[in-house]
Amino acid sequence: MITLTLPDGSKREFENGTTGLQVAESISSGLARNALSITWNKQIFDLNRVIPADGNITINTWDSEDGKYTFWHSSAHILAEAVQSFFPDAKFAIGPPIENGFYYDIDFGDHKVSAEDLEKIENKMMDLVKQKLTFTRKEVSKADALSYFTEKGDPYKLELIDGLEDGQITFYTQGDFTDLCRGPHLPDTSQIKAVKLMSLAGAYWRGDENNKQLTRIYGITFPKKSLLDEYLVRLEEAKKRDHKKLGKQLQLFMFNPMVGRGLPVWLPKGTTIRRILEAFLRDELLKRGYQEVITPHIGNLELYKTSGHYPYYSDSQFAPITVEDEQYMLKPMNCPHHHQVYSSEPRSYRDLPIRLAEFGSVYRYEQSGELNGLSRVRGFTQDDAHIYCTEDQLAQELDNAIDLTQLVFKTFDMPVKTRLSFRDPENTAKYAGTDEMWNHAESVIHKVADDMGLDYFIGIGEAAFYGPKFDFIVQDAIGRKWQLGTVQVDYVMPERFGLQYVGSDNSKHRPVIIHRAPFGSMERFLSILIEHFAGDFPLWLSPVQVRLLSISETYNAFTDEVAKKLRAKGLRVETDTRNEQIGGKIREAETEKIPYMAIIGEKEAESNSLAIRRHKMGNQGSIEVDAFIAKLVEEVETKAMPPSFQKNA
Amino acid sequence: MITLTLPDGSKREFENGTTGLQVAESISSGLARNALSITWNKQIFDLNRVIPADGNITINTWDSEDGKYTFWHSSAHILAEAVQSFFPDAKFAIGPPIENGFYYDIDFGDHKVSAEDLEKIENKMMDLVKQKLTFTRKEVSKADALSYFTEKGDPYKLELIDGLEDGQITFYTQGDFTDLCRGPHLPDTSQIKAVKLMSLAGAYWRGDENNKQLTRIYGITFPKKSLLDEYLVRLEEAKKRDHKKLGKQLQLFMFNPMVGRGLPVWLPKGTTIRRILEAFLRDELLKRGYQEVITPHIGNLELYKTSGHYPYYSDSQFAPITVEDEQYMLKPMNCPHHHQVYSSEPRSYRDLPIRLAEFGSVYRYEQSGELNGLSRVRGFTQDDAHIYCTEDQLAQELDNAIDLTQLVFKTFDMPVKTRLSFRDPENTAKYAGTDEMWNHAESVIHKVADDMGLDYFIGIGEAAFYGPKFDFIVQDAIGRKWQLGTVQVDYVMPERFGLQYVGSDNSKHRPVIIHRAPFGSMERFLSILIEHFAGDFPLWLSPVQVRLLSISETYNAFTDEVAKKLRAKGLRVETDTRNEQIGGKIREAETEKIPYMAIIGEKEAESNSLAIRRHKMGNQGSIEVDAFIAKLVEEVETKAMPPSFQKNA
Repeated sequence: MITLTLPDGSKREFENGTTGLQVAESISSGLARNALSITWNKQIFDLNRVIPADGNITINTWDSEDGKYTFWHSSAHILAEAVQSFFPDAKFAIGPPIENGFYYDIDFGDHKVSAEDLEKIENKMMDLVKQKLTFTRKEVSKADALSYFTEKGDPYKLELIDGLEDGQITFYTQGDFTDLCRGPHLPDTSQIKAVKLMSLAGAYWRGDENNKQLTRIYGITFPKKSLLDEYLVRLEEAKKRDHKKLGKQLQLFMFNPMVGRGLPVWLPKGTTIRRILEAFLRDELLKRGYQEVITPHIGNLELYKTSGHYPYYSDSQFAPITVEDEQYMLKPMNCPHHHQVYSSEPRSYRDLPIRLAEFGSVYRYEQSGELNGLSRVRGFTQDDAHIYCTEDQLAQELDNAIDLTQLVFKTFDMPVKTRLSFRDPENTAKYAGTDEMWNHAESVIHKVADDMGLDYFIGIGEAAFYGPKFDFIVQDAIGRKWQLGTVQVDYVMPERFGLQYVGSDNSKHRPVIIHRAPFGSMERFLSILIEHFAGDFPLWLSPVQVRLLSISETYNAFTDEVAKKLRAKGLRVETDTRNEQIGGKIREAETEKIPYMAIIGEKEAESNSLAIRRHKMGNQGSIEVDAFIAKLVEEVETKAMPPSFQKNA
Repeated sequence: MITLTLPDGSKREFENGTTGLQVAESISSGLARNALSITWNKQIFDLNRVIPADGNITINTWDSEDGKYTFWHSSAHILAEAVQSFFPDAKFAIGPPIENGFYYDIDFGDHKVSAEDLEKIENKMMDLVKQKLTFTRKEVSKADALSYFTEKGDPYKLELIDGLEDGQITFYTQGDFTDLCRGPHLPDTSQIKAVKLMSLAGAYWRGDENNKQLTRIYGITFPKKSLLDEYLVRLEEAKKRDHKKLGKQLQLFMFNPMVGRGLPVWLPKGTTIRRILEAFLRDELLKRGYQEVITPHIGNLELYKTSGHYPYYSDSQFAPITVEDEQYMLKPMNCPHHHQVYSSEPRSYRDLPIRLAEFGSVYRYEQSGELNGLSRVRGFTQDDAHIYCTEDQLAQELDNAIDLTQLVFKTFDMPVKTRLSFRDPENTAKYAGTDEMWNHAESVIHKVADDMGLDYFIGIGEAAFYGPKFDFIVQDAIGRKWQLGTVQVDYVMPERFGLQYVGSDNSKHRPVIIHRAPFGSMERFLSILIEHFAGDFPLWLSPVQVRLLSISETYNAFTDEVAKKLRAKGLRVETDTRNEQIGGKIREAETEKIPYMAIIGEKEAESNSLAIRRHKMGNQGSIEVDAFIAKLVEEVETKAMPPSFQKNA
């Protein structure tokens, strides 16, 4: 008999030789019907594979990451089978599942894959999945594996097998296609109901540009046709919201090769948003007892040798600059600079916690091919802070830091799930610090999460090397998930930098450090805000809040007078007093996504009122100037969502 | 006969063979008595030297830079004569006048110069000057010059002569001392009434650390004993105000070798001041139609090749960093980045002026030996802006820009003189751009200075290579002068960066650029503010404005309540509710130069009032809490000077 522990903690006994499918059936026939694979002690297994021993078991369905992983992994094999049916000489490299779907890297020889080819392959895939092909797992010896792919003439698989140990090699076969594969796979193809090949790309074998460039085919599959349709709609919506497109249209930021790749320039309207976000956060920081500092954008290499980030992370850093007899580096993080501020004076337990905050610009090297708008850049500004506290203060300080991140996400109406990112207890070698430190810190984190009533889950193996952390996964208006913000516990840097305080016992102690950044990076956060709001920012964030449109030049003086009144209340106002048709003026303002348009003609000038249009919402009727000001000021103060904002989560 | 033009523009005729002294006598006997040298066509001449031809002439007295230069140059020779009398084997290197006094670099062989030696030398100098020694100029051949110093055994003079052309070598002799020297000198030593040797330092021959280290003796002399006394008092006052000392004491900034030499870290209190200064300026910028941008701290080397700053200024830049196939540099200035923003879109004359502002951090290489607190750093933040305008808008935009600099200096109660920095018409090769551009720009600048009624003078040869400019020389509270802020006209960069706008004539034109920075650099400006105010900042700038001191723990609750009230009005408040003597609490607050101390005891708690102390001004009596708040808010809003502030200009 074997004993299996289900996700709810309950234990059940099964005969030796039981498969995952049998376990699912023992729970419910519905579950068995929807089952895609199982996860047993963190390994994903085929449903029809015998469960080897006691352990934790989860039945994976479409609703879980592991289930989708299995589904898309099998779909990649179907893609390969379909390709092979049309291109028998194609050589197959690797075909993994990814976040949305899967891809396969294929060597088509001299053939250029066309859109027609993709359509043909997609149709063939639909034919294949309808045949309810089963996936068969087979353990093979290294010699047999090599001989199979030698015969097939596939150099990529041979190279992969070369790197594997004998006794650990498995093949999976469905229909006419056999692949070198660790699995797992679906029992058969019948659950795949919708197939879409998305795009083509070039990809070097093993990511090395000295190797041959292969053709990568991206695809996605679903257990229901309607899910594919929804996915495509969401993709379309995401494309409309693309921050690169909107950033250009709304003149928020720019990139320019003369300035440099991956180095964003904040244009005036983007800078306005950034300054508002910074002021919002700075206000909160000062209320919460933080102190702001400003540190240089370079640092002596010794700092990063001490922290251990150099040379270990030098792949993601800019090369050092030699200055006289020293070496300097563009700072990849603010932490070591803050540690120097901490240690610039003797500290007593009475001084703690010390909370040092900085909007600190950092520079990290990314390959130019990896750069992507504001999402992936080479220079960005963190809303960084480091809290130096005693062990006794840790829980309270974590609570404070998390409270701030929650306020940020709430302000932008983004639902959030918290991941408690703990170390992998089976792989402790990769973590610095003692077991005692880790266990203590993880228990504090767990308790804080419980006490605060966070909606959390635990991510084993997701900790930083220097300590466990809270990670926040927020959902944007179209249901996409972004990891944003982080609150990290650090016992390692205090050691490495020799940080101290004198305790009430008059002896020296190490403080604990909390690293935290609610926005994360101003650049990436703006990219997410742009897409979350599709460029229709809440009034308090809008670079221009109101545009006053005069119907004819007769009303320009009154228009200017109104503008002055609004500006005196701190509102960001533009006037459009050109001698143009009012319809054209409105269209322009709508294109620029200006929240309020106030139209001024005879009636308005006479009654000291404005005819208001709200972006996307059309005419809002007439309102007196002072009442309009009061309404706007309230909307700014309450940080209200724009009326057009819809969550489609 | 020769015709000489006096500084007031009047012309006078003199016999051939007339000396400067004779010209002075012809003007007034008082002037002749105070004359030290003359400046004839920009060359300084001995008073008794024959004026060679027609030209401009100025009689230099102690009140002019050129007069002091002559006075201190002669004093250096007296120093050398005094040294020689005690140390006949001493070898003399160079002995120039400097900003405050003079020095002489001397090789004393194995002898270590002591404080006693200095005293002896100083006394000897006083003896010598009383002898009314005359300075005699003599032209000598190179051969004679070499033979004189070979005999004397002075290798440094021999090396210097080696670098000179025959026919251009002169000796000056006074008393027993003859020096290789271009002059000029005083007629005799009788005007030197006070002598002070200030300090000793090591200095390598020719500044090269591979050469022998010589002993540098610094000294200063005056035509009146009272001037020396005043100078020493001012020095003492300057030392008390030293921003490096006060910056540390008041915890405004720090340097740390682990961060890097010349890289300031703004501590929380310094950051508070900086943020206030930035907000003050940002408010003004927005009112004046500027738009803020944020650009990266590195830039592609192509930017600086285009601007011409690389490789021509690479001595003062950090070395480039190679990134993939490109080179990047820490940006030494913000201009090229802003030009990219300008040219990111087609611009029409209707869009101009475009005023792009940035608090932009830049990095320039300075030798570590040149670094000095916040005055001379390797990384600093400019309050930079570039105004892109049409030729027609230039005068108005210059007026606006200067108006802002004047507001800044007025806000800090710093008297200012403006220098119109024009090119040297006799050396046009070093300037870019056409004569037409220069003449036009200089005439616009001149007219703006007149129209604005600026207190200005003209500095020929002080222009930037790309255009003429306004420079501002402000005077601090103890009468020292600082060049601060600049407004520059630039016709060159628009060409080099190919900047354009479409004019009302529908054809393409180049905009003119105005570069301007009222503070100059936030770091250097803070250093000047610290010394100007001796750390006693006006209330609106003070990092902590009020400290509430409770007399005993009984009043801590009331103290906290008052603190909350003050904070709600935006005041920066600290409480000192420790169980300590009130006298000690007051002393601490005075040391930290906190503007207001509010003492809270029984009487205050009962009457909802505060017993106020003003820093340096002592007790101010009792005031009700609300009245105190109103008073502080007004003092902040009016940016009032602190009551202890005294100008000693």
